Amino acid sequence: VFALGIDPGVSRCGYGLVERDAAGYRAVVAGVITTPPTEPLPGRLATLLRELTELIGQHRPDVVVVERVFFQTNVRTAMSVGQASGLALAVAATAGCQIVQYTANEVKASVTGYGAASKEQVQRMVQSLLSLAAVPKPPDVADALALALCHLAVAPRLARIAEAGAATGGSR
Amino acid sequence: VFALGIDPGVSRCGYGLVERDAAGYRAVVAGVITTPPTEPLPGRLATLLRELTELIGQHRPDVVVVERVFFQTNVRTAMSVGQASGLALAVAATAGCQIVQYTANEVKASVTGYGAASKEQVQRMVQSLLSLAAVPKPPDVADALALALCHLAVAPRLARIAEAGAATGGSR
Repeated sequence: VFALGIDPGVSRCGYGLVERDAAGYRAVVAGVITTPPTEPLPGRLATLLRELTELIGQHRPDVVVVERVFFQTNVRTAMSVGQASGLALAVAATAGCQIVQYTANEVKASVTGYGAASKEQVQRMVQSLLSLAAVPKPPDVADALALALCHLAVAPRLARIAEAGAATGGSR
Repeated sequence: VFALGIDPGVSRCGYGLVERDAAGYRAVVAGVITTPPTEPLPGRLATLLRELTELIGQHRPDVVVVERVFFQTNVRTAMSVGQASGLALAVAATAGCQIVQYTANEVKASVTGYGAASKEQVQRMVQSLLSLAAVPKPPDVADALALALCHLAVAPRLARIAEAGAATGGSR
């Protein structure tokens, strides 16, 4: 299974493709799509649209995991994050990928399973699950890989725990 | 000159293509792209991306006029308006169109030339400049046509007035 995590942004859009197989998890490709703040916005969005289309067309992920952003989080960048996430969702749906969204808080909570983890704990989870020598940099890349891993590794485990709890009559 | 006005939205995205020639202004085509709220968001954005691409590819406007939205305006729909506007801007830039953005207040102000006009005044301007028997409906269509007309008809006139004022030493 291939999952592509996308941390949407116009200036910097992080992405990370993770493969899960019998041996575990592997980072296939990861990076940041950047567009220069000195250029007009429409051209930057066109660049992002083209690069996201190429990325998804080239790697054909089974699932695309896009961070769900609430505009309240950062008033200044809300509109451009909305624009970038709209492109990512539209391109992924056009390519026929399954699409899942998690908030940053859901990614953080999924690491510990019960509450909010720190940014550093999330980065260490990424490093650990992908057997990397160091935390991926820049942070946009680590965030994108965390989204993919959250979906592949953590979310199913939590679902199983929830099912087991329900089956044994445990409380939620 | 052909100007395509776009009033961005995911549920309802209004568009109106206006031609300016020696005889005046003419509405070439206008309508609303709708996507069903019952469907998942990524598929709706993919539909919007496809229909905007078709619309712009088919009519090849010289300039695309997209309403500039500030997320503060409507907290509830801010993210989806951002997503829709991002698609419109990216598609227009990809097609090589000139792109201009006005806020709703700029459109309203441009009608009277000095202050805020009412929604009804804007709609009457649309009806009058396009020689229509009635105000275009639904409002999304009138808003999109108003954006195109604001750019074609009103903005240049205001610029000439400003130039004349500067040339005669008039105050701004």
